Amino acid sequence: MGVVVQNIVRAEQGLIDRLAKAGVATVHEAQGRKGMLASYMRPIYAGAQIAGSAVTISVPPGDNWMIHVAIEQLKSGDILVLAPTSPCDNGYFGDLLATSAAARGCRGLVIDAGVRDIRDLKEMQFPVWSKAISAQGTVKETLGSVNIPVVCAGASVDAGDIIVADDDGVCVVKRAEADEVVIAAEKRVANEEAKRKRLSAGELGLDIYDMRPALERKGLRYV
Amino acid sequence: MGVVVQNIVRAEQGLIDRLAKAGVATVHEAQGRKGMLASYMRPIYAGAQIAGSAVTISVPPGDNWMIHVAIEQLKSGDILVLAPTSPCDNGYFGDLLATSAAARGCRGLVIDAGVRDIRDLKEMQFPVWSKAISAQGTVKETLGSVNIPVVCAGASVDAGDIIVADDDGVCVVKRAEADEVVIAAEKRVANEEAKRKRLSAGELGLDIYDMRPALERKGLRYV
Amino acid sequence: MGVVVQNIVRAEQGLIDRLAKAGVATVHEAQGRKGMLASYMRPIYAGAQIAGSAVTISVPPGDNWMIHVAIEQLKSGDILVLAPTSPCDNGYFGDLLATSAAARGCRGLVIDAGVRDIRDLKEMQFPVWSKAISAQGTVKETLGSVNIPVVCAGASVDAGDIIVADDDGVCVVKRAEADEVVIAAEKRVANEEAKRKRLSAGELGLDIYDMRPALERKGLRYV
Amino acid sequence: MGVVVQNIVRAEQGLIDRLAKAGVATVHEAQGRKGMLASYMRPIYAGAQIAGSAVTISVPPGDNWMIHVAIEQLKSGDILVLAPTSPCDNGYFGDLLATSAAARGCRGLVIDAGVRDIRDLKEMQFPVWSKAISAQGTVKETLGSVNIPVVCAGASVDAGDIIVADDDGVCVVKRAEADEVVIAAEKRVANEEAKRKRLSAGELGLDIYDMRPALERKGLRYV
Amino acid sequence: MGVVVQNIVRAEQGLIDRLAKAGVATVHEAQGRKGMLASYMRPIYAGAQIAGSAVTISVPPGDNWMIHVAIEQLKSGDILVLAPTSPCDNGYFGDLLATSAAARGCRGLVIDAGVRDIRDLKEMQFPVWSKAISAQGTVKETLGSVNIPVVCAGASVDAGDIIVADDDGVCVVKRAEADEVVIAAEKRVANEEAKRKRLSAGELGLDIYDMRPALERKGLRYV
Amino acid sequence: MGVVVQNIVRAEQGLIDRLAKAGVATVHEAQGRKGMLASYMRPIYAGAQIAGSAVTISVPPGDNWMIHVAIEQLKSGDILVLAPTSPCDNGYFGDLLATSAAARGCRGLVIDAGVRDIRDLKEMQFPVWSKAISAQGTVKETLGSVNIPVVCAGASVDAGDIIVADDDGVCVVKRAEADEVVIAAEKRVANEEAKRKRLSAGELGLDIYDMRPALERKGLRYV
Repeated sequence: MGVVVQNIVRAEQGLIDRLAKAGVATVHEAQGRKGMLASYMRPIYAGAQIAGSAVTISVPPGDNWMIHVAIEQLKSGDILVLAPTSPCDNGYFGDLLATSAAARGCRGLVIDAGVRDIRDLKEMQFPVWSKAISAQGTVKETLGSVNIPVVCAGASVDAGDIIVADDDGVCVVKRAEADEVVIAAEKRVANEEAKRKRLSAGELGLDIYDMRPALERKGLRYV
Repeated sequence: MGVVVQNIVRAEQGLIDRLAKAGVATVHEAQGRKGMLASYMRPIYAGAQIAGSAVTISVPPGDNWMIHVAIEQLKSGDILVLAPTSPCDNGYFGDLLATSAAARGCRGLVIDAGVRDIRDLKEMQFPVWSKAISAQGTVKETLGSVNIPVVCAGASVDAGDIIVADDDGVCVVKRAEADEVVIAAEKRVANEEAKRKRLSAGELGLDIYDMRPALERKGLRYV
Repeated sequence: MGVVVQNIVRAEQGLIDRLAKAGVATVHEAQGRKGMLASYMRPIYAGAQIAGSAVTISVPPGDNWMIHVAIEQLKSGDILVLAPTSPCDNGYFGDLLATSAAARGCRGLVIDAGVRDIRDLKEMQFPVWSKAISAQGTVKETLGSVNIPVVCAGASVDAGDIIVADDDGVCVVKRAEADEVVIAAEKRVANEEAKRKRLSAGELGLDIYDMRPALERKGLRYV
Repeated sequence: MGVVVQNIVRAEQGLIDRLAKAGVATVHEAQGRKGMLASYMRPIYAGAQIAGSAVTISVPPGDNWMIHVAIEQLKSGDILVLAPTSPCDNGYFGDLLATSAAARGCRGLVIDAGVRDIRDLKEMQFPVWSKAISAQGTVKETLGSVNIPVVCAGASVDAGDIIVADDDGVCVVKRAEADEVVIAAEKRVANEEAKRKRLSAGELGLDIYDMRPALERKGLRYV
Repeated sequence: MGVVVQNIVRAEQGLIDRLAKAGVATVHEAQGRKGMLASYMRPIYAGAQIAGSAVTISVPPGDNWMIHVAIEQLKSGDILVLAPTSPCDNGYFGDLLATSAAARGCRGLVIDAGVRDIRDLKEMQFPVWSKAISAQGTVKETLGSVNIPVVCAGASVDAGDIIVADDDGVCVVKRAEADEVVIAAEKRVANEEAKRKRLSAGELGLDIYDMRPALERKGLRYV
Repeated sequence: MGVVVQNIVRAEQGLIDRLAKAGVATVHEAQGRKGMLASYMRPIYAGAQIAGSAVTISVPPGDNWMIHVAIEQLKSGDILVLAPTSPCDNGYFGDLLATSAAARGCRGLVIDAGVRDIRDLKEMQFPVWSKAISAQGTVKETLGSVNIPVVCAGASVDAGDIIVADDDGVCVVKRAEADEVVIAAEKRVANEEAKRKRLSAGELGLDIYDMRPALERKGLRYV
């Protein structure tokens, strides 16, 4: 407790932006169906689709002091990832902190807790994925840590991991795997385009993916 | 397990469309306050109001193979109704499956699990009512069944039952009762119009419905 | 059970309107971080920001009879606050009741239960904060009470207390404390404006609020 | 609403008792992994293991009037199965109703709601599986129905279906399938006994069930 | 925040003990079906049945400092009632605090949060009703208040109110109403004894309470 | 997916046994209030208190195939730690698997999912901490992994980490920190003994810990 790790390694920005473009569902599949945060993490407004390097924050329940500490560690293109040490829905973050984070180039916030000033955040177009919306205030009494490994909404996140977030939720990509995930993701996108056309023309997945023999072997009966 | 019922009986399309027009709250009241799916079933975007014949899908947790099988059974005007055999929030359904279903005239999906590619589905105007939004992927390993009776979000649904869905949630009408429900629903709509005018003019429900004597008999005290 | 308190004391309307303008997060902080209803209370549409005097309704599960009784007690500027005696998600309130309440100047509804006719309520611009959206109907068989103290979504509300509600949730202000809360809230708003500018220019909260010495005293280590 | 079906068909008692002896997990597997009620249904005390014919009760939220009606329909060996029409945790059932039900030979209660007088019920050895324990009382104002099909904790139950319940939860067996389920269940029990000995002696399931080739085919890697 | 009310008025001890003897379900009914705390409040071990005067504690999430302050305010026969200002499952209370409270004659704890050292508390026979069992520790950094009005698990509790708790849950009786509640409760107990005998002999509630005419009037149909 | 790590490093058994003796609450505090699994992880019977080296299992929802694979990796003194890749309450584990695991010296199971055959497991004294009790069966179709890092009930667990579990829940100690945690834990135990005596004699925590000056400085007011 009470540690700020200052020099974190980030993935290359070009790579990160390609992950953002692929989107959460594709990136998640491309890395073998792992990395999703819990489905209760919802965007405060629809339509944002971002990616960035994680600056992690571990906080006590009901205490948002460390967010100020974390903002100083932000570089342009980063995403704040906050996890309380025990479950808490309080509104840790609002429009003043967003103003400060945005001034440093922060792309958004992923918070396994509550957020407030929703209307202002939407007007600013500062995207947040949160467990709750709550105006319940917090104190500034107890230390936490910045850029240590955290478990956020059921997923392990290390500082510098890449966060991808859109209307489907939030996914984390391990920094060391980012290269191969990007390649696999872009392959999927290309591949899906072809399939979309065939499906749209009325062809069935059963035929496109040649599923009928496997279904029969497993014993599917038509009655 | 592993059964596909191919010939299901559907209600007449004109009847179904009249139920869609009446909307969920009215239809639910018209059939004696029954048939609502659990209130956690929410639309992925606001404003859609549909009805259709249920093509039911029973699936294992985390396995979406049977959706491909079900799509082949769709007729124009149908609604897919998916229930996992044990609770699961995975993203069973996305834009490719929606493209395929829409190509066969499917009006929407009701899923007691997760859905993904929200932004695409909204752009396509393919309405979905779901328990969760989640990009968490699924596998294609284990059989389920199509058009067998299922319990979806706490309600019994048989293939061919009529599903009505709008911003208020999802309601199921038993096929055999559709005729009388339509008549009762349309009567309610007409009846409500008159009441809306009187209430809007400031008359009280207490007087319009003549509730004061009954309240007094039960012992209501004004202090 | 079965009591209607007719003469409740309300705060001055000018005061109430100033609380509405300050918004939930600010008012909640201004009164010492208290008064928030549970964060599961969500608006049925985004953007409404209101305040008003509470007309409270205690109801049995699944019975909405007393709402008709409560509407007669409404004065212009009031907000209905409904709490069931045991948890219930049923749709107690819809467009007809909203029409009647609006005709008497009611500003909105706060309901620790379900609401329905969402599309109509949005079109009417009648704002509701609820625990659930559900078309599940109710009966009119059992008495409840109007304007007695209730616990709504975890907060105590007395008739005549001031309810403030916006996209961040719902907050209750005790009538006797309204004067000082307004003053504290407006001071916060003015104060925040100055800070927003400095933060927007890139200054850090760590420096603006002079947090570095306190963090050091608590033992924060930079590595 | 408001219907009591008086003549229901029950399975043969000997069959029912054999299902009780097999227990929930075995019976559930023997019928193809179906029929489990939701896992939130927990026994109020450990150790009871019963089976019986379902007498179903559909009740409004917070109203236990119909339990009195249902008790008259009980025959020796029956189990009461109660489902509210909307979710409710109230304490519908306590020691007086249990005394009355036990006097008619009832073997227990399965209730997708609350129960009370826990200490008395345990002393009486009247087993209950419930969603909640709650002393919150109910009223007797609104009709429900007895022996109509219900959805209880996510499972469809018809009057006369066989309920099996023990510390693992509650399972329903369709009356028409009871014969073959009993046979399959008893076969499983015999089969498991042999396996238990081999596993207890240190043999591995990997070898007993010959799983290694299949795991290798799927691509399992040992590192 | 940060207030300790030292002189609270308590009900007479004899009255309190008679409420303990009547038990939660009876007391709750005797006062008109009100006063139950939420059903998620469960005893950490079965069999305790107590009553006492509430010493209330309002605490921040994750901070148990004020429990030490509250213990000094305890008189023999009191019960501690703890409510966090925002939801929190942390283990605020364990065997050391229980030792200290017991030394001052405290009869138990009602806590809308977590508790730990379960095995020790059971050995000491110090009863606790809690929302959670959790060893997650707390800090001592932020003030709360003692003996101010709190909302605990959905019920309003004032210092000096009487808490009744047993295996059915927790009920609060307003101090001013204790006299009449005791009388009504003891009447119920006497009355129930007579009914238990008749029900046990096989008489039906339908006849004992003369329900048949009312059921018929409401339209109950036997088929 | 589909990887089995065979050689994991374990802590020294003597160290592990000392952690078991200290218990969950003490160990958790001794390592700086971290490492608790979510409080929904509950023992299936009271009284067990164990520690052991984690053999981790990552499984798909509803598929328990990998448990057989993991059992082969067990050494005497190990604890199985199972985490599904998406939330699932199915009964992955019962008495046959327990028999096999016990035959290899396994001390217990920690499972972020369901377990069944509760009565048998209790008779065998095979302790389990689980999210749910459910007889709902699983399949053996899809690979998972053994001894890779998992997130179990909100906590990161690596193979070889030490799991401590008792009636208070489950705590994980990182293998590299085990030495210092043991020392700190045993110090706490010794220290608490002295305090327990003083508190038992009626001394107040306020005085023993000298809290009064700090409370005064923060502004606590006695009224």
